[in-house]
Amino acid sequence: MSSTASFELSRIRETLLLMASLAARHLRVALQALTERNDSLADLVEKQDSEIDSLEVKVDDLVITYIATHSPVAIDCRFVLVASKISSDLERIGDQAVTIARLARRLNAAPPLKLVFDIPRMALVAEEMYRGAIDCFIEAKAKEAIGIVKRDKEVDALNKKLSENLLQAMREQPGSIPQATCLLLISRAIERIADHAKNIAEEVFYLYRARDIRHRGWAESGRPTP
Amino acid sequence: MSSTASFELSRIRETLLLMASLAARHLRVALQALTERNDSLADLVEKQDSEIDSLEVKVDDLVITYIATHSPVAIDCRFVLVASKISSDLERIGDQAVTIARLARRLNAAPPLKLVFDIPRMALVAEEMYRGAIDCFIEAKAKEAIGIVKRDKEVDALNKKLSENLLQAMREQPGSIPQATCLLLISRAIERIADHAKNIAEEVFYLYRARDIRHRGWAESGRPTP
Repeated sequence: MSSTASFELSRIRETLLLMASLAARHLRVALQALTERNDSLADLVEKQDSEIDSLEVKVDDLVITYIATHSPVAIDCRFVLVASKISSDLERIGDQAVTIARLARRLNAAPPLKLVFDIPRMALVAEEMYRGAIDCFIEAKAKEAIGIVKRDKEVDALNKKLSENLLQAMREQPGSIPQATCLLLISRAIERIADHAKNIAEEVFYLYRARDIRHRGWAESGRPTP
Repeated sequence: MSSTASFELSRIRETLLLMASLAARHLRVALQALTERNDSLADLVEKQDSEIDSLEVKVDDLVITYIATHSPVAIDCRFVLVASKISSDLERIGDQAVTIARLARRLNAAPPLKLVFDIPRMALVAEEMYRGAIDCFIEAKAKEAIGIVKRDKEVDALNKKLSENLLQAMREQPGSIPQATCLLLISRAIERIADHAKNIAEEVFYLYRARDIRHRGWAESGRPTP
């Protein structure tokens, strides 16, 4: 591979890393806006989302330039294809952080709920999942990627538990319905983030393993069952 | 463009069309399994999902072969990149049809609910959205793609209304909770299908318009707000 080609692949990798760290930061700040009832932090997340959007465009730009310039071999084609798919997932993680920030602002305008719901724990698992997925991508760890796919069920279970608790709270304290609805939507946003992390892990598995293992791989690792 | 290159691009297009029509059929059959309380139809959807999975692998295979064989110009690179992203969305639509089929089987084992919930109407909108998105892809209609992005709110509103009705039913008839929970999950699966249709429409818009319009385009057409 020419040194230009290798340099361009590194740029794609670095841009994805930057996107991943921005999305991680936005999620953390959005959750801080929620726990600290801080509107300025929520504004920050919403304002800076365009940075992630621009990086998504940049990744696809780099990918297209790379393909058009170098006649890449199959493994490099797979790499740039997966890079582009991962950047879509990261962009959507950023969008979910914006959703959380907006809901936090809506919650901040209402009296605080007496009840405590474990949103931060769920967010922590989702964040670990997608940081892990990015790590698998960078470090070429296909086996570990399956572990991340499996963790999605953990977040689904936390979301289910949280939703049940919130529904119960609504029944027992009808006054809490507006806030509980916001928390339900936040829980769903975090569950979506975990889904995107799972997508990234699946894409990494496809990248580094023989392609015909792809769907069999998911079946072995436990396809989501209703 | 050489006739081989043009032939290969047509194959990618045709494979996507086949995936789209299979996913549409699976969704219809899964809903039929639900409305007609027919387990065999649910089995059929689950059994045939691997066909869509294989086609997803095939699309990426065709894309990689195309890139590696022809040094494509930018517009063709964008086309194959978007084709690969769309195939991921179609594969996930197929997965949601399997989820619906499994839940239908679970519902068929329980006594039928007296209450009627408008799942078919929501499914119809979701199906129209993703058929429309595929049509925009094939026919190069960027403007119409924005219309599809906007329709996602319609499905979100139907899902919200349905969920509220189901929660009310659970409160009023606690005996209906198991069935109502299945219907809640089915409603969510359909809402996800509409999300994937929206993703496809966004990808089509990116493909046919100048890239810098991409995220501005979404903002103008109404980004999802919580």
